[in-house]
Amino acid sequence: MPLQRSWVESANSADTDFPLNNLPYGSFRAEGGEAHCGVAIGDMILDVTALEADGLIQMDDMDEVFFFGVWNEFMALGPAAWAAFRETLTEMLAEAAPDAEALTAYMVPQAGTGMLMPFAVAEYTDFYASKHHATNVGTMFRGPENALPPNWLSVPIGYNGRASSVVVSGTPVRRPWGQVKAPDEALPRFAPSARFDFELELGAVVGLDSEGPVTVAEADAMIFGYVLLNDWSARDIQAWEYQPLGPFQAKATATSISPWIVPKAALEPFRVATPERDRPLLDYLQEPGPMLYDIDLEVGLLPEGGGETVITRTNYREMYYSSAQQLAHHTTSGCPMSVGDLLGSGTISGPARDSRGALLELAWGGKEPITLEGGATRSFLEDGDTVTLRGAAMGDGYRIGFGACTGQLLPALDDPYGGRG
Amino acid sequence: MPLQRSWVESANSADTDFPLNNLPYGSFRAEGGEAHCGVAIGDMILDVTALEADGLIQMDDMDEVFFFGVWNEFMALGPAAWAAFRETLTEMLAEAAPDAEALTAYMVPQAGTGMLMPFAVAEYTDFYASKHHATNVGTMFRGPENALPPNWLSVPIGYNGRASSVVVSGTPVRRPWGQVKAPDEALPRFAPSARFDFELELGAVVGLDSEGPVTVAEADAMIFGYVLLNDWSARDIQAWEYQPLGPFQAKATATSISPWIVPKAALEPFRVATPERDRPLLDYLQEPGPMLYDIDLEVGLLPEGGGETVITRTNYREMYYSSAQQLAHHTTSGCPMSVGDLLGSGTISGPARDSRGALLELAWGGKEPITLEGGATRSFLEDGDTVTLRGAAMGDGYRIGFGACTGQLLPALDDPYGGRG
Repeated sequence: MPLQRSWVESANSADTDFPLNNLPYGSFRAEGGEAHCGVAIGDMILDVTALEADGLIQMDDMDEVFFFGVWNEFMALGPAAWAAFRETLTEMLAEAAPDAEALTAYMVPQAGTGMLMPFAVAEYTDFYASKHHATNVGTMFRGPENALPPNWLSVPIGYNGRASSVVVSGTPVRRPWGQVKAPDEALPRFAPSARFDFELELGAVVGLDSEGPVTVAEADAMIFGYVLLNDWSARDIQAWEYQPLGPFQAKATATSISPWIVPKAALEPFRVATPERDRPLLDYLQEPGPMLYDIDLEVGLLPEGGGETVITRTNYREMYYSSAQQLAHHTTSGCPMSVGDLLGSGTISGPARDSRGALLELAWGGKEPITLEGGATRSFLEDGDTVTLRGAAMGDGYRIGFGACTGQLLPALDDPYGGRG
Repeated sequence: MPLQRSWVESANSADTDFPLNNLPYGSFRAEGGEAHCGVAIGDMILDVTALEADGLIQMDDMDEVFFFGVWNEFMALGPAAWAAFRETLTEMLAEAAPDAEALTAYMVPQAGTGMLMPFAVAEYTDFYASKHHATNVGTMFRGPENALPPNWLSVPIGYNGRASSVVVSGTPVRRPWGQVKAPDEALPRFAPSARFDFELELGAVVGLDSEGPVTVAEADAMIFGYVLLNDWSARDIQAWEYQPLGPFQAKATATSISPWIVPKAALEPFRVATPERDRPLLDYLQEPGPMLYDIDLEVGLLPEGGGETVITRTNYREMYYSSAQQLAHHTTSGCPMSVGDLLGSGTISGPARDSRGALLELAWGGKEPITLEGGATRSFLEDGDTVTLRGAAMGDGYRIGFGACTGQLLPALDDPYGGRG
C-alpha cells in the first residue's frame, strides 16, 4: 500500500511518524486542562473528544465514548467499531475530503501539547520472548550450557507486572531504593539501585474482554494496537529478590509507554512470521498466519548536558513468540482478560551486539561498558540520562511510527521516607 | 473487650461470626438484582446502599458512595470516615438503639441471599510469608539443606497475581488446562491439571492510594480490612512454568475470597507480634507494634456426595511477615498502591503436619496422601471437591469471623476451545 495523502500537509512527508496510513490513538491535555482523546495526523492532533461532543462523530447512541479522554470505552465497542471509526477518520482527513475546512477548528499542534496516558491500564503482563535476549541473560546468569531454561522453547514465559506503575512517555523516573546484596556481601542493604536499566519492548493493548481460553487467531483479533514500551529495571534489586517467585520490586518503579497506540490495522501491511521453531510448539500455540511485524526499533541515550547516542538498533521481527501467542497462552488457565490489559513483548534483542535491547546485555553485566559519543561510558544508567525508544514500520514512501517513548532518570531521594521512617 | 449486645438477637450468640463487635463489609444481590453494599449483623444483612439512598446515612455531600454496590468509594474516603461510619453503625445496631424499629425495613436475611464481590480488585499481589510453608515447599523442591532461599529471611517475597481472576466465595472453579511435563517426559503436554490445590491465606484490602515508599506504620494505616483467601494453584503447571520468572498460569484460574471484609478495627483486640527474627530485618521492615492477629483458621474438604473433613487447623499468628510489612516492602521501589489492591498473606502453615495450609504440604507432594472421614484419600483435589476456609478471632464470649470462603472444583472441559481450536 502506498502513502495515502491527507489535506494536512505535514502528514504527507516521508519523515512523519503519522501519515494518513497510521491514525494512532492518544490522549492529550486540551485547553482548560481536561484529558481529550486525539488522533495524530502529521504534526497535528485531531481532537476526537471535541468532535464527539459537538456531534460531528457518534460512536454510540447513548454515550459519549471519548468523554473521559481515554480509549477504553471505545475499545470495548469491538473490532467492527474500530474499523468503522478508522474508515470515518480516513475519509475526513483524506486529501480531497469535503469537510476539511470544518475540521481545522479541531486540530491541535503536537508541539507544546502535553500527552497523557492513552488508556487506563487494567492489568500489565510482561513476557520474555526474544531468544537472543533470553540466551544473553541466561548465559550471564547461568553459563552458556544452561542459558535457555528447559521450558523456554515451549512456553511463552511471562509474569504479571504492576499496572499502577505504567506511565506515559515524558514522565521522569526516579531511581528507586531497594534491597540489594552483592555476591561478596553477607547480608543485604537498603540502598538506591546502582544497576538501573531500560528494556526495549513493544506493548500489545488488549481491546476486548475474554473468559476462558482463546485461540491464537482469537487473541490476535482481541488486540487493539501496539505501543513502544520501556520496562525500567533495577538489576541489582532483581538479582537478590527474583528467586523463587520472579521479579517484583525490580520492575515496579515505572514502565513507560509511547503516547500513541498504533492501530493493528495500520500495521497489517507489515506482518511477518515468527522464526523457524527449534522445537515444535504445542497445538494451542500454532499460528494461523504471520503474527509479528516488521518494525524497526532503536534506543537513544542522552546524558544530561550531552548529545544523544543511538545505542541499539533492532527489529520486532526478532521475537520468538508473538503477542497473539502470548495472549493465547495467558488465557490457557481460564484467566479472564480485560479491555485495557497491556502485554509487554519482552526485551527485543537481535543477534548482533549493537542490536541488544537492554544495557545489561549491551554492556554484558557491566563487564564491557559501552562508549557514547563524546567518550563517556555506560554499564548502567546514570542520573540525568534520558532514554528514548523510537520505532516505525517502513512503507513505500511513508512510515508508521509510534512517536518517541522517552524518560529521564532522576537521582534517588536522599531519604525515600522523607524523615518519616 | 466483651461482647457488645445488639437488638438483632442472633448477633448476641457466641456462635455467630457477626456480633456487633465485627460489622464486616459485603456486597449482596438485592431485590431486583442490583448489587448493594451490606453489613453483616448476626444472621442478617443491613442494606447500606438502601439506607444511603433513603437519606438515613450520608457519607459524602455530593455523592452516594454506596451506589455501585462495592466498597471502593467508601474506602477512598479514608480512615476518619471508616471510624465515623463504624461508630454510626454501632449506635444504630446497639441493644438500646432508639431507631431499631425504622431499621428493620433495611434488614435482609443472609440465608438465601447471593453474595457478590465486596470490592473491585485494583491489583492483586500474593506473598510467601509463612516460614513453615516456605520450608516445607523448599524441602520438597530443593532438599532440606536449601529449603529456604537465601533472601527469604530478609525479603517479604511476593509476586504480582491476576486481579481479574479473583472471585467471591461460592463461585465454582473449573479445573484448568495447561502445559505440564512430568520429570520423566521429554516434552510438555497440554492437558488438564492433575495436581490442583488450594492455599489457605488471609488477604489484606488496601483502602488508600500511595505514591512513593511508605513505612510499616503508614502501611498498617492504609489497610482497610481482611478477607479469607484461597489461592487455587495448579502445582503441575507451576512446576514446569515457574523458572525463571515465577508462577503465572498456575495461579490465574481463580482466587476465592470470603464475602465479608472484616474491618481492621474489629481485629484490634487480637493483635499479636510477629515471631523472633532468625536474622535482623532491615530498618524499613521494623514494626512499631504488633501487626499480626490471633485468628484461628481451618479448611474443610467435602467430596461430592460425602461428608466434610476438616483437614487443617492453624492460626494467622504463624506468619513471619505481616501484611503491613508486605505492603511497606511493596512500595520500596516507588510502586504506587491503589484503593482496592488485594495482598494475599501467602499460604498459612503451622509447625504440625495437620496445620499445613495446602494439600501440597499436607500430602507431601503426593507421597503421603491424607485420609478423609469415610476412608477416601487425597493427594490433590478431585473433581467435585468443595474446599471451605473458615476463620475467626476468638473474643470473650464472641467471635470475629469472616463467613465461609468456599468453592467447588468442577471437572476440566473436554475441549477448552469448544471446537474453535
